Amino acid sequence: MQIFLHTVRATCKFGARYGIKYLRFLDQISRNLAVSSRLYSETPQWGSKKKHRKVKLHFQLQSMADPKIEEVLAPLRSSVKEQGDLVRKLKSDGAPDFDVKKAVAELKARKKLLEDKELSLIPSASFDRAKMEDLLKRRFFLDQSFAIYGGITGQYDFGPMGCALKSNFLSVWRSFFVLEEQMLEVDCSILTPEPVLKASGHVDRFADLMIKDVKTGECFRLDHFIKAHLEKVSLDKKTDESLRAECQDIIIKLDGMSKQELAAVVSRFNMKSPITGNDLTEPIEFNLMFATQIGPSGLIKGFLRPETAQGIFVNFKRLLEFNSGKLPFAAAQIGNAFRNEISPRSGLIRVREFTMAEIEHFCDPNDKNHPKFESVKHTKMHLYSACSQMDGKSAEYMEIGEAVKTGLVDNETLGYFMARIQQFLLKVGIDPAKLRFRQHMGNEMAHYACDCWDAECLTSYGWIECVGCADRSAYDLTQHTKATGVRLIAEKKLAEPKVVDVVEAFPNKGVLGKAFKKEAKAVLDALAALNKNEIAVLEGKISKNEDYDLVLHDGASIKITKDMVSIKRYQKTLHVEEITPSVVEPSFGVGRVMYSLFEHNFRMREGDEQRTYLSLPPAVSPLKCSVLPLSGNTEFTPFIKKLSQDLTAFDISHRVDDSSGSIGRRYARTDEIAIPFGITIDFDSLKTPHTATLRERDSMDQVRINLDELPTVVKDLSLCKITWAEVAQKYPKFEQQENAKA
Amino acid sequence: MQIFLHTVRATCKFGARYGIKYLRFLDQISRNLAVSSRLYSETPQWGSKKKHRKVKLHFQLQSMADPKIEEVLAPLRSSVKEQGDLVRKLKSDGAPDFDVKKAVAELKARKKLLEDKELSLIPSASFDRAKMEDLLKRRFFLDQSFAIYGGITGQYDFGPMGCALKSNFLSVWRSFFVLEEQMLEVDCSILTPEPVLKASGHVDRFADLMIKDVKTGECFRLDHFIKAHLEKVSLDKKTDESLRAECQDIIIKLDGMSKQELAAVVSRFNMKSPITGNDLTEPIEFNLMFATQIGPSGLIKGFLRPETAQGIFVNFKRLLEFNSGKLPFAAAQIGNAFRNEISPRSGLIRVREFTMAEIEHFCDPNDKNHPKFESVKHTKMHLYSACSQMDGKSAEYMEIGEAVKTGLVDNETLGYFMARIQQFLLKVGIDPAKLRFRQHMGNEMAHYACDCWDAECLTSYGWIECVGCADRSAYDLTQHTKATGVRLIAEKKLAEPKVVDVVEAFPNKGVLGKAFKKEAKAVLDALAALNKNEIAVLEGKISKNEDYDLVLHDGASIKITKDMVSIKRYQKTLHVEEITPSVVEPSFGVGRVMYSLFEHNFRMREGDEQRTYLSLPPAVSPLKCSVLPLSGNTEFTPFIKKLSQDLTAFDISHRVDDSSGSIGRRYARTDEIAIPFGITIDFDSLKTPHTATLRERDSMDQVRINLDELPTVVKDLSLCKITWAEVAQKYPKFEQQENAKA
Repeated sequence: MQIFLHTVRATCKFGARYGIKYLRFLDQISRNLAVSSRLYSETPQWGSKKKHRKVKLHFQLQSMADPKIEEVLAPLRSSVKEQGDLVRKLKSDGAPDFDVKKAVAELKARKKLLEDKELSLIPSASFDRAKMEDLLKRRFFLDQSFAIYGGITGQYDFGPMGCALKSNFLSVWRSFFVLEEQMLEVDCSILTPEPVLKASGHVDRFADLMIKDVKTGECFRLDHFIKAHLEKVSLDKKTDESLRAECQDIIIKLDGMSKQELAAVVSRFNMKSPITGNDLTEPIEFNLMFATQIGPSGLIKGFLRPETAQGIFVNFKRLLEFNSGKLPFAAAQIGNAFRNEISPRSGLIRVREFTMAEIEHFCDPNDKNHPKFESVKHTKMHLYSACSQMDGKSAEYMEIGEAVKTGLVDNETLGYFMARIQQFLLKVGIDPAKLRFRQHMGNEMAHYACDCWDAECLTSYGWIECVGCADRSAYDLTQHTKATGVRLIAEKKLAEPKVVDVVEAFPNKGVLGKAFKKEAKAVLDALAALNKNEIAVLEGKISKNEDYDLVLHDGASIKITKDMVSIKRYQKTLHVEEITPSVVEPSFGVGRVMYSLFEHNFRMREGDEQRTYLSLPPAVSPLKCSVLPLSGNTEFTPFIKKLSQDLTAFDISHRVDDSSGSIGRRYARTDEIAIPFGITIDFDSLKTPHTATLRERDSMDQVRINLDELPTVVKDLSLCKITWAEVAQKYPKFEQQENAKA
Repeated sequence: MQIFLHTVRATCKFGARYGIKYLRFLDQISRNLAVSSRLYSETPQWGSKKKHRKVKLHFQLQSMADPKIEEVLAPLRSSVKEQGDLVRKLKSDGAPDFDVKKAVAELKARKKLLEDKELSLIPSASFDRAKMEDLLKRRFFLDQSFAIYGGITGQYDFGPMGCALKSNFLSVWRSFFVLEEQMLEVDCSILTPEPVLKASGHVDRFADLMIKDVKTGECFRLDHFIKAHLEKVSLDKKTDESLRAECQDIIIKLDGMSKQELAAVVSRFNMKSPITGNDLTEPIEFNLMFATQIGPSGLIKGFLRPETAQGIFVNFKRLLEFNSGKLPFAAAQIGNAFRNEISPRSGLIRVREFTMAEIEHFCDPNDKNHPKFESVKHTKMHLYSACSQMDGKSAEYMEIGEAVKTGLVDNETLGYFMARIQQFLLKVGIDPAKLRFRQHMGNEMAHYACDCWDAECLTSYGWIECVGCADRSAYDLTQHTKATGVRLIAEKKLAEPKVVDVVEAFPNKGVLGKAFKKEAKAVLDALAALNKNEIAVLEGKISKNEDYDLVLHDGASIKITKDMVSIKRYQKTLHVEEITPSVVEPSFGVGRVMYSLFEHNFRMREGDEQRTYLSLPPAVSPLKCSVLPLSGNTEFTPFIKKLSQDLTAFDISHRVDDSSGSIGRRYARTDEIAIPFGITIDFDSLKTPHTATLRERDSMDQVRINLDELPTVVKDLSLCKITWAEVAQKYPKFEQQENAKA
């Protein structure tokens, strides 16, 4: 899971974990609006008590090239570029780390100003998040978990409509990735013993900074806390201009600050708990994993997994075996992961329990070409390169083939998955105008990764990271090999056999057995694992009758004496070489993509703002079809019943609404839950040949079709085997108005 | 989740939690065999160090009626009946609880003797569990989690084949239950705050008894521990007959013993830790839920849910709203649940992390008829009634319509779901000869439930409880209403309006507001919640100028004085009445059904014991089809590629095996992973019209079909739209032998 995790593996600066871009937007927007605290938090949260307002969303990115706008942006762009160039220079000059970090923080600050300005200048459509959230809650797409108990922030339950959407989404994902690429899907444990997450780096580095009320123990996430405090100071009329400027400056640079720098800010402004006025502790690193004990003794410490990826890595050996030892192959996993956020906000975007869908594609580190790259190379993508980000430029459209050819995207396998991710996102209903792939800048990327791109969706929270796609090289397999001594490697057939000189510390098992008894096995393993140089040292020692200190796998050290080993030299013909595979990892945050789908597909009927609906594609719509009797006339009942049975037989999820509302009102209700097709049984249906009307949600157009044909037509429409346009052409249009607002 | 949980809600005696029958079989079988400790536990477990042996399984239940066998069983049957009658008599006489309990323990002991004898007399087929487990591990259906780290007992990862089987299983379940019945599927949080599980009874009563080594802290599950100790004593040659008899007697009665009785046994035999010889603690109740903290403060205690059912109950209000306030409706949830078993054994049967699929059908407590009961009433079922169990009789075949009519099964809704559960289990591949529905006896059933049946599958571990089906009445909704004050009720339209006398304690809001300030709202709520009798008391008090003690929802008590309320009496016309719905709960243990599927579908080829395979139905088989080139000839490659693409386009999961083994060996490999259909491209395929062979796994028969037709034929076979017999009749048989054992 690279989405949130690049920093675990690189650095633990809290900001970076969620993508700098995302936080920046969040910052910008949070000034104008508040999260709908009714939907997303029953317990009012500190710092979010503002009233709800309409959010201005900035959709038409294509109008970016307007010369007047560019004129305004020009100075900001060059200010970013100037700083970007400075960073480059410092790096190439090998300047001290501290200087580079400072310069990067300033670069980020300037990038933020540019992006804020960009968004404020683009002609914007208005998006009413409160209205959408009202729809989602009212029609039970989702709600806060345990709401009748007051709820817990950062946890959501999906109701029937949200659950069906999610389940359809995952089923499309499975068929698009697992089936199409014949991936090896696994389903691994959530409860994970400590050593596994120690090896992966999570135990030591998966943390956020927080600060605590010394008396009540109330916790605040440090960055949020400082920002809120400084904003308050800024807004105070009594604050003088220079102090205000200082506050603004700190807010902008917050992301790049170290624990010490942040602590200094807290003390400089003499910050207290906003709730009690009590003193606060020093900043504390808080590990974001949920801890528990496995078994009754309390001796086995475990965590709820923070990502699904590790389950695949620890099973690498079996998976490779399953694939007959051949590379490349991909494994996939869909499952829940958990993060104990300090103070979750932003609805589905940041939660404590979430579903991920991750792929780990294992390949030869020296050959990252992809056999199917040819089939995607003309895919046009909206790429926001690290270079453009440093130069103050915008994202650009480019074919993925071109991007790989020019080296912008590191290799074909990475490029292939980026293209496939885009195809998938568009298929499930992401708006292409609100999708971009942002490359990690050098300072964001994990040290072992060679390239990393995030698929970001534009929402009212800003650009949010929904899918990560990283080339993670051999990092994880290497870590687990180190921790367990089990070699997670693959064998690669050599083009021609190779003769090599071998030097070996050949054990005298009798002597070793006597000397080390139970430990002899560990000693043998350690001897076998010695490399050429170590054997040379060993040889030197024993030739001088000295002891050699051999370090065992568990870290203990024992003495090897002359009589225990002999050094053997010989030649060997190798037919294979051992390699540690590289891993390319597409990682989907399912809740984040779903949230973006909600925003991208939320609509209002022209001329009737109250009539909102979700324009989700049939493939993921919770239900495919509604079945409505025109009125309560009992003659309709057998037709409704028969139709419902037929639809079930065709595996078409549907809903019968025989309530007493007008047909228009009932259509509006089915539109709200995104049902793309609606069948109405009316008085004409009673006549032979029996027919009914079929309505399409977005256009509200209707046609008249024979009842016998309906299930097949709806099935084909749902599977996108035919389009509505084709149906509308084939069958007679039905003209009656539906918009009687009874 | 009733499967394991009926006792949480009734009594916490550890034995009952897994179904008495199951434990009994486990006991019997565990004497003859040991769990394959390689597959199911890397850490050797105390008490299971015996060597692996073949298990005798007793399949042909139909031969039960053999008169000779019945002759042998007759005395045992009448011994059970005698004791059953005694229990009945004690209950009807209102004998002391203690006496009833003693008699029930003896009844259970006698039942066990009968069942053991039954199984030992039936002509048996041999089942080699080690061989099956070897297949499951070798072909990565499943493996112990974190195996490279030494593994954790009670946790399993599903590899590609296990995961695909599970995912197909759940998809069939969804379509069979959720789609067919238009259930409201939800997806709720796993992390659950303490108050929710306090209300459900889990915090106080979801516990097993354990005993600890006083020095090392090593824990043992008390019942397992005592049993193993007594078995050891029994087997000791030095043990005299009377002591041996005593041991046997205790082992048999273990299930029914209280904590005190068990403690007495430990001390009577002076038991020590079998590992260290150290003293042991007194028995301790160990709560089986995994605890953790939600949020950074450590103040919100949470648990990993022990069942998925509670997520549905706490969302009842929204679900009812979603269903337009109408009863009956069903909600469903598929998800993971967790239990911190003290010492998990028996592979997939008892694990710490597992997937459940639960349905909660809410209905009018006074009308449990089911509209679709008619469609299932002729379903023949193998019912093992509580009465038969007490009378020493066997399970009987009966139509479910008959069972409901005679009152054996309490109501139509319960009967409907029992029949549907059976239909589903047979559809996914459970052997009908190894399936029965066992009714809970009075002493097993939760106090609030009115009837409860478990679908049990016969495996080498004995009869294991795979699906529970219980009428849980209004218990859960009532508990959550009590805990939250949120009334979880439905409104039922009255046949005709009813005029009722209302008496109301009408609040004087001004006075109350002044007197109670912030608490006034709670006081108003408490006044509104007073029932008739309480109002009468209140009226009496204030008429005498005395204070009335009003208890608020949070348990606090305040004084109501005369000036605060006036008593009003009037008549009201009611059109609806409020009811707390009853819940019928089918609850599937997915891992247990999957394990039974493995056993019921494990086969060996006649005459070749090494050639094992899984005969799973196409609907759940991990992959539907294999694609094999006859040899490495490169002319086959384009055909293989094209065929694979066509199959993908038809959504048919498949595997290409172009490795160098003989065709027979490759078929054997695909048989192992249960692939039902295999396509081979051979030299005839190169000629026009292009054809290939299609092979069926179980019969190994082959036909020759045009390549164009193949995807459709395989798709239809996979979806059971056509049978193999039909295909075999339509297309020419292909006669070449495959069983060259190259």
